[in-house]
Amino acid sequence: MTFPPVTLVEVSPRDGLQNEPEILSTGQKVELIERALAAGLRRIEAVSFVNPRRVPQMADAEAVMKAVPRRPGVTYSGLALNVRGAQRAVDAGVDEINYVVVSTDSYNQANQGCPSDETLRGWGQVATLARDAGLRATLTVAASFGCPFEGEVDVDRVVHIARQAAAEGADEIILADSIGVASPADVLQRVDAVQQALPDAALRCHFHNTRNTGIANVLAAMQAGVRVFDASIGGIGGCPFAPGATGNIPTEDVAYMLERMRCAGSVSAAALADAAQWLAQTLGRPVPGMLSRAGLFPRPAAAACA
Amino acid sequence: MTFPPVTLVEVSPRDGLQNEPEILSTGQKVELIERALAAGLRRIEAVSFVNPRRVPQMADAEAVMKAVPRRPGVTYSGLALNVRGAQRAVDAGVDEINYVVVSTDSYNQANQGCPSDETLRGWGQVATLARDAGLRATLTVAASFGCPFEGEVDVDRVVHIARQAAAEGADEIILADSIGVASPADVLQRVDAVQQALPDAALRCHFHNTRNTGIANVLAAMQAGVRVFDASIGGIGGCPFAPGATGNIPTEDVAYMLERMRCAGSVSAAALADAAQWLAQTLGRPVPGMLSRAGLFPRPAAAACA
Repeated sequence: MTFPPVTLVEVSPRDGLQNEPEILSTGQKVELIERALAAGLRRIEAVSFVNPRRVPQMADAEAVMKAVPRRPGVTYSGLALNVRGAQRAVDAGVDEINYVVVSTDSYNQANQGCPSDETLRGWGQVATLARDAGLRATLTVAASFGCPFEGEVDVDRVVHIARQAAAEGADEIILADSIGVASPADVLQRVDAVQQALPDAALRCHFHNTRNTGIANVLAAMQAGVRVFDASIGGIGGCPFAPGATGNIPTEDVAYMLERMRCAGSVSAAALADAAQWLAQTLGRPVPGMLSRAGLFPRPAAAACA
Repeated sequence: MTFPPVTLVEVSPRDGLQNEPEILSTGQKVELIERALAAGLRRIEAVSFVNPRRVPQMADAEAVMKAVPRRPGVTYSGLALNVRGAQRAVDAGVDEINYVVVSTDSYNQANQGCPSDETLRGWGQVATLARDAGLRATLTVAASFGCPFEGEVDVDRVVHIARQAAAEGADEIILADSIGVASPADVLQRVDAVQQALPDAALRCHFHNTRNTGIANVLAAMQAGVRVFDASIGGIGGCPFAPGATGNIPTEDVAYMLERMRCAGSVSAAALADAAQWLAQTLGRPVPGMLSRAGLFPRPAAAACA
């Protein structure tokens, strides 16, 4: 069971904080990003360019992007759901624009105010705008594994959106289990289906640990050939449509597993566990991630015996 | 990714409750067991025959065994660490005696008061006693994946204990990640090593979710051919040597994954989630299991939209 290095995309500054009640200051967000970089992460989903009245957590997107450290090999992604947001993203200096289409109409309506094919039609303009500005453009297929309103999601629906994403030049397609319902068998089925339809597409997966299957789903996707995963320090970032549930897979916990499997690349689980502890202190409450509570392994004998 | 049905051994009545501060009444323990049976589980680790002064949670082992329902196909296991305990187990009417040897001397000393080879020498007597009484005898290799005192554990050490267990007629050998440090690669390595040394041995795995890898480790072990896993309703049962950490993998969360992978057999994740909620109420605090908080999927559309 050996794998080439896995890349983790740190989504706590955007997907994490956007779905938490607390609003961090710009300085705190930048510190979170700096801690992620210090832990060896190189791809950061930093901000969102959506309506600040609807998502006040992300109102300082431009200020965050002004303050983040620029280093070779480090890229920042910003979420945009329309051309206006994409133009803000370009102006703010992101390296990558992420666009979201939900696989089902009900959920897309609740999230974005229109059926999903209407959102999908907007993708071409956003992708073109990004490309013209020299940026990467990625597309997340939200609720690829199940919908809180409609239940099971047909694989063909996911493939349909992925095909459209690729046809308009997506640099990466993200299959997202937005409400945390997937099993490893679901992961293999959907990754296989998209890979067969789009053999050249770069795939990324986004899992939630809502029902405790998130890390097993990472393993299944790795076995299916996926090498890039979203993860969130502390596991912050639930889903507004899955109340009471834990959210994104915790970066430090995934990194712990990857380190023991010798495919964590330059990422440090220890530094990420420290970042998760800092984040818990900053938010003023425990975070779902487990490594920061359980501690690293192996620990020095003296510490274990204490 | 298809598997034959997986068997879950419900360990909450023993391994779960033994490692929690609360002491349930005999009636509450029997209700827990009845709920496990109602959820379709058929193998129950019900009691422990150890010194009641050291483990007051298990002092009513005989009373529990008198009260549990006897049904065709349902078997009860009791833990014993010496011949005296094994004789109590026989007298109390268990179907199976489980014996524990820790892979490292330091941890075996802390847990059982002697080096592990000394405990291993006691296994033959216990196995013989069980066999003579017509019972199954199983052996758990504790800390098979890492030790809180000594750190990494050599694979050969695990194989050595497993060989001795088999030589004295173990009906099943359990590889236990007692402190929750294993990764899927560790699981594959150790399961493979024991399978190569003992091709005919019946293997079971016991994982903790301490560092969020427990369910991924189940998947890896399934892929390596293991078909029997310990799990604990609610995920109760930490490790006294891993304070602050979550414990056993939650039966309801594993069952959710297995149901979606069509290999849960007759076990119902919904009934287990109900049992986890009941257990949380009975203990007076939340349990680590996630399914009982997040809810089943798919849910009726009306419920999701509320």
